This record gives sequence, C-alpha cells and structure tokens, in this order.
Amino acid sequence: MNHIISPLDLSVEELDKLLDLANDIERNPEKYAHACEGKRLASLFYEPSTRTRLSFEAAMMNLGGKVLGFSDGGSSSATKGESVSDTIRVVSCYADIAAIRHPKEGAALVASMASQIPVINAGDGGHQHPTQTLTDLLTIRSLKGRLDNLTIGLCGDLKFGRTVHSLIDALARYENVNFILISPEELRVPGYIRDGVLQKTNVSYREVVRLEDALAELDLLYMTRVQKERFFNEEDYIRMKDFYILDEAKMKLASPDMLVLHPLPRVNEIAVEVDKDPRAAYFKQAQYGVYVRMALILTLLEIA
Amino acid sequence: MNHIISPLDLSVEELDKLLDLANDIERNPEKYAHACEGKRLASLFYEPSTRTRLSFEAAMMNLGGKVLGFSDGGSSSATKGESVSDTIRVVSCYADIAAIRHPKEGAALVASMASQIPVINAGDGGHQHPTQTLTDLLTIRSLKGRLDNLTIGLCGDLKFGRTVHSLIDALARYENVNFILISPEELRVPGYIRDGVLQKTNVSYREVVRLEDALAELDLLYMTRVQKERFFNEEDYIRMKDFYILDEAKMKLASPDMLVLHPLPRVNEIAVEVDKDPRAAYFKQAQYGVYVRMALILTLLEIA
Amino acid sequence: MNHIISPLDLSVEELDKLLDLANDIERNPEKYAHACEGKRLASLFYEPSTRTRLSFEAAMMNLGGKVLGFSDGGSSSATKGESVSDTIRVVSCYADIAAIRHPKEGAALVASMASQIPVINAGDGGHQHPTQTLTDLLTIRSLKGRLDNLTIGLCGDLKFGRTVHSLIDALARYENVNFILISPEELRVPGYIRDGVLQKTNVSYREVVRLEDALAELDLLYMTRVQKERFFNEEDYIRMKDFYILDEAKMKLASPDMLVLHPLPRVNEIAVEVDKDPRAAYFKQAQYGVYVRMALILTLLEIA
Repeated sequence: MNHIISPLDLSVEELDKLLDLANDIERNPEKYAHACEGKRLASLFYEPSTRTRLSFEAAMMNLGGKVLGFSDGGSSSATKGESVSDTIRVVSCYADIAAIRHPKEGAALVASMASQIPVINAGDGGHQHPTQTLTDLLTIRSLKGRLDNLTIGLCGDLKFGRTVHSLIDALARYENVNFILISPEELRVPGYIRDGVLQKTNVSYREVVRLEDALAELDLLYMTRVQKERFFNEEDYIRMKDFYILDEAKMKLASPDMLVLHPLPRVNEIAVEVDKDPRAAYFKQAQYGVYVRMALILTLLEIA
Repeated sequence: MNHIISPLDLSVEELDKLLDLANDIERNPEKYAHACEGKRLASLFYEPSTRTRLSFEAAMMNLGGKVLGFSDGGSSSATKGESVSDTIRVVSCYADIAAIRHPKEGAALVASMASQIPVINAGDGGHQHPTQTLTDLLTIRSLKGRLDNLTIGLCGDLKFGRTVHSLIDALARYENVNFILISPEELRVPGYIRDGVLQKTNVSYREVVRLEDALAELDLLYMTRVQKERFFNEEDYIRMKDFYILDEAKMKLASPDMLVLHPLPRVNEIAVEVDKDPRAAYFKQAQYGVYVRMALILTLLEIA
Repeated sequence: MNHIISPLDLSVEELDKLLDLANDIERNPEKYAHACEGKRLASLFYEPSTRTRLSFEAAMMNLGGKVLGFSDGGSSSATKGESVSDTIRVVSCYADIAAIRHPKEGAALVASMASQIPVINAGDGGHQHPTQTLTDLLTIRSLKGRLDNLTIGLCGDLKFGRTVHSLIDALARYENVNFILISPEELRVPGYIRDGVLQKTNVSYREVVRLEDALAELDLLYMTRVQKERFFNEEDYIRMKDFYILDEAKMKLASPDMLVLHPLPRVNEIAVEVDKDPRAAYFKQAQYGVYVRMALILTLLEIA
C-alpha cells in the first residue's frame, strides 16, 4: 500500500516520474478523462480548506472518478469521539483512495497505518502538506524548465509557514539551489530547518529583512501569507501583516523572468495590480495543483 | 465570456430562446442527459440556500455533468480573508461554470469580472436572483401560454422581496401586463421600483392592502414569504407575518384558472390545504427551476 | 410508492430477497456498476451522521448513480422554517430517491407521505434506523449462515440504543432466537420492548449485569456505544461509560466462533486490541452496510 504523508516520501526519481505524468496530463487531458471511472475518492476534511479540497475533487472528477466525504470535522463522526483510525477503516469500505486534512500533526500518518486504501496527507496541522509542495515543484519545473540551479526567495512568515519548510526540504535535494530567506526577525525560519536541512545539505542560503534587498537576484519569489491563526496575539499580527507587500514598484526591481509564486489564499501580501504582470504565476500554480493531484491519484492507485 | 448577473442581462429574444430550450428539455430529457459530460459546475454558496443549490446541482447532474463546491461560507477560504475575485480565479482552474450565492450585493458581478469561466448569480444579498426570475417566467409561460396580457397579483413582503422586484423588472418588458401589488403599508414596493420601473414602462399597477380585494381579477397570484431575516426587530415580524395567508376560503374568490406561484420555502403564507388545489403551481415551479437552470448552463457553455 | 421507514416494513420474505440481492452484489459488484446510471439520490441529513451518509453515498455511486443533498440541517432551508413535507416535495423534483436523517421521531414517515419519490429513513431521533438493522441482519446471515437458532448478546446502553431495539424487533421474527441482555440496571431495555416484543413473541431472553456471565454462551455479541448525547447529566455518563469494555481477556471467555458486531462509531467499549481477533466483525459490518443499501436502492427504484 502506498501513501503520501510527507513530501519526501517520494525519491527524486519517483518525483520526476510524477511530474512527467502531470505534464502529460496537462498536454493530453482527454487521454485521462476516464482513467478513474468507477473509482471513488474520500475527501476527509476535519478542518475547512476549500482550495485544497476542491483541487482534489476536481482532480478526481477530471479522471472520471467520483467523490464523497466531508468538508468540516463538525459534521463528521469525530464529534461522537471516533478515532481517525476507525474512521479510515470504515471509509476503506466506501472509497478507493482518501485525502485527509486534519488539524493535528501526525493524523494522516496514523490514518495511513490503519487504512486499507492509499492515503494522501492533505495537510496535518502545521506539519506537512505534501500536495502543496508537489504543486510548487511542478509549477517551477514547468515554468522554469528545471529544479536545480535556482536562486529562490522565500518571503513572509517563515517561522510557521509549513509550505515554505516543505519546499526547502524538497528543493534542498537538487544541485545549486540558493535560498534567500526574507522575513522579519520574529518570523525567521526555525532552528530545526536551519540546522536540520539548510546546514546539512549543499544549498546556500542568506537571511535578509527587506524584500528590496533580494529581488534583483531571484529566479523565483515565493510569497506567503501571514496567517492570522498562527499568531498568539492580535497586536503582533497587525504590526507585522503588512510588512512585506509585493507591488508594482517592487516588481520593477526584479528580473524580467523572475516568477512570483504563492500558495494562496493571499490576503494583501501581493497587491492586486501585480496579477496582470506576466511574471505572476500564482493562478497558474492553482492549475498545476490539479494536474499534480491527478498524477498522484493515478500513481497511488497504480493506474498506468 | 457570458455571465448572468441580472435577470435583464438577457434580451427578450434571448430569453425566448432560453425558455424554448427549457421546454424542449422538459419534453425530451434524455436528449440532454449527456450534454455536459466531462463538464464541472462549481457551486459556490457563501450562505446556505438548499433549494437553489440543489436545483443547480440537479440541473448539472441531469446534463451528465459533475458538481463541486461548498454550501456555506464558513467552510470556504473566505474565512481566511480571501477575496471573491481570487476565489473565482482559482475556481476557474477547477470548473467549467460557476453558480455563486453571496450575502453581499454585487458579489456575483465582482466575481464575473475576475472569472475565466461563466458565472451565474445565484443570489447576492437583497439584490438579484436571476435564476428565480427565469424560473418564474418559464412557469408562467409554460402554464399560461404567454408572458403578455396578464394581470398579476404580487402579495406579501414587497419591500424587501427581491424575487418580486426582479419579476416586475422582467415582466414590465411585455405588452399589457397589469400588476396588483398586495402588501401592508409597511412593506410596499420601494420607491426605486415604483418610480424606476412601474412608472417608466407601459405597465399599469394598483396597490391594495387586502388580498380579497384583488383575487377575482388575477390571472396569477405570486405569494411571497415574510422573511424573518429581513426584519429589524422580532416584534414587527410577529405582527405582520400572518397578515396575508392564502387558504381555501380565499381561493374560492379567485378565477378557476388563476395560478398560484411561490418562490418557496413558504412558512405559513399558503395554507397546506391549498396544495391539492389544481391552481397551486408552486411545486411545478420548483421543477421548472431545474429545466431553466439546465437551459442556462447549456446556453452559457455554448453547447447546442 | 415504496418507502422504508421501519425495519419491519419488509416481510420476512421480502427481507430474504433483499439480503439475497445484497449477497449477489457482494459477489458480482461489476454486474451492478451501471444499474443506477442517470439516477440521483438525495441525501438529506438534518443532523450530521458521517458514517450513515457516506455509506448511502458510496452505495449510490457503486451503482453508477449520483448524489446531491446536505449533511447538516444548519445549511438547509429548514432554518428558514420550511416543513419536512415541503422540502421532500421539492426534492422530488431533483432526485429519484431520498435518504433522510432527522433528529425528530416520525420525520421520515411525514416526509414519505408528502414525497413523490421513495424515501429511506436513515434515522429519526431515537426511533428507527432501518438500514442499520438491515446491515446487522445481512452481516449475521452472511457470516453465521442463518438468522434463526442463535444466542445473541446485546450489550451496553439497552435503554436508549435504538439499533438494539430494532434488532430485537427484527430477530424476534425468526425461530429459536435467544437474547442475553447485558446492561447496567439503569440502562435496561425499556418496558415497551420487554412487554411489547420479547414477551409477545416466541423468543427467550435473560437479563444479566456482567458481560462475563454471558460470553461463553453467545453465538454473537452485539456491543453498543454509551451515547453521551442520550444522557441527562455528565456524571451519569462518566460513571457508566467504561462499565462494559470488551478486551482480549474477555474474548478468551467466548466461543471460537462467536462474532462481535458493533454499529460504530465506538468510543472505548471495544479495546483496539480486539480488532485483530478474527471474531471481530464490525469493520466487515460497515462493508455489508454498503451492499445492503445498494440492494435497498435497487429494490425501491424497482430496478431488477
């Protein structure tokens, strides 16, 4: 049984194969339109996440499959005290594959151990969100043509932002990747990323405070939202949330082929005026998110 | 790109074509059972509205298409502060057409401007609800055989009732339409409808307080619910909600071919005993609502 | 029009036929994979019940049908004051068959009287939950080979547990069925079951307090959850909830072919260590729940 719990569950070779499949889906969607006919995806969202949920559901539908599930833990048996293990055991009777989103770290792993169908971690607390990382990798590889030899700016909340941590993990496996970590002092990458990943691998990195000090060098700028729910108090949130806003003026400092990515939803960290800049790739990224999830479902269900 | 934001987005000719298509669907449902195969409707309900949502979902399913979405803003990314524009941009990657219901006036228009897929306004606050109006028009044309030369009673909350306002707008475009506006003083049609529509067009109208004073003249009685949520205080609501109740006794005052319509849900403004009267057309109306939404989806997707 | 409101709506002969169909579906799922193509199930859950809802939805999907509905009364028109009768009348325009779950006793019956499509009671308050009973009967007949000549232990909350009451009703129709009713004094089967069913039929029964006093005699042990929501105060719940916990040690007292059933979700009344015991049949039961619902949908839609 194959599951995807962490972005690193796939080797570089497996990842290459997955991204190749996603690109083939992008070019020939009709070839895959019936690949999952008669298959059912269980979409188990213990906390709301419309974007991720709809992306999974669109992916399964594009493959000709069906979707069942819940979009909110409040309307699940969890409120009757059922364990995630029991839920997935029962859902194994209803579906062929499951995507699970849960507020608790490790929930997807626990589910995968009890499951009789493949489990995809669709986010477990501040921990892992592998399909976001796969989306990011597919977007970068598709639009830049490579995953190595890149200078990448990561900007915003680098302390709590799990998408950033996973992306660092994933890109650190490629040659000549350089990170510029752009954040306020209070939201710097945590020690376990700095020591555990950045200093153990062959990537180079630099930390800066001002977005303007990094822009000119970047092949790619990955913006992140300052997530209100990660803060301990309202005041800290308000003081910092507008710290890093990408606008047209800042975009002029960047290279003409620098890509802007964002996991979305954004609040105001990218001004709407940037949307029409051809370097803005965050809506394309949402589309790649569907292709990569289609590829992942096919791979885990072992459908060639 | 075509969208339907207001009932008047369609010319009289386009409307005729749409209603013709809806009637053809009614007569030959099997002809359309696969028309939207492989197509996906995004059902974006920022506030609950089961009836409208299920009508759209049934419409898409009857056409062989699939549905994804959310039924409640609370489980959407909106809670993370995302704009409607961003949501629809991303949903454009997941679906081929979207129906959007939102508590704020203008939300559907804003969405349509950012969207890369056709947008149908499924209700935006007290503003517009075009598919209800299309449903009403299809019901009237199907059961009365015409949209002109009609005397129409509109009864209940005419001040806040957006379905009534839209219906007036839509019917004012036809020849020899006469309205009798039946409401308590406090809930009369607002000035912008009286001055902006009724007095500017060639329709005639009269305002009365008692339902009994209008019934005998009507080709059609359109009842509306006194919506609790539109009132500013509980006391006003309680005093007025039972003001206009249609029952068997009142039905005896009406012509034998007067139709009774209601956008539903009703609370108690039509007594249950009226349901078995052959003139009660409100449940047929719900069925016409599916046909007209099927026709609208086909039209906006430009599927012949 | 056929509806299933109570488990006893089916005669013993009809039930046999239904269970035969369910077993045929189990053996030949592909034969039924398109049986409901173009059909729509309305899944009307006025209160959350993930397990039951997903089981119905999986059943309809396995038959090639589609599903629409709501998973929570809060997002339905019920909040606007609409009656269940009106809702089902309108839903009759959207779907071919409906499964309804409602917190009020009798709601499904009321719905069936207004409905123009078959209605399945998916649970109405503490009253009836026929598809759970059908699931239990299918599980017992499939795994024990018979529904007569059985000694059955019913354990836990026998006072409020409607699944237990329905199962007693259903099994009392078979020859030589013996019940051992295992519960604390406070949660004994209510008088109307003892007098109305047990003493009027030819079943024999005995009431015991300790699970250990019954285990050795049983062909089947049916465990139930102590449902927090049925208690009037927290203290009673806490005192009693751990009263009857089935664990490996207790399983040693049972016969090697005693089956353990549970309607699920469990909280802690069956220790997780029992899951790997081959006599634990509660997850298989969840699978049988899908087959029996498939058989029921086919039967009510009169699809051979």
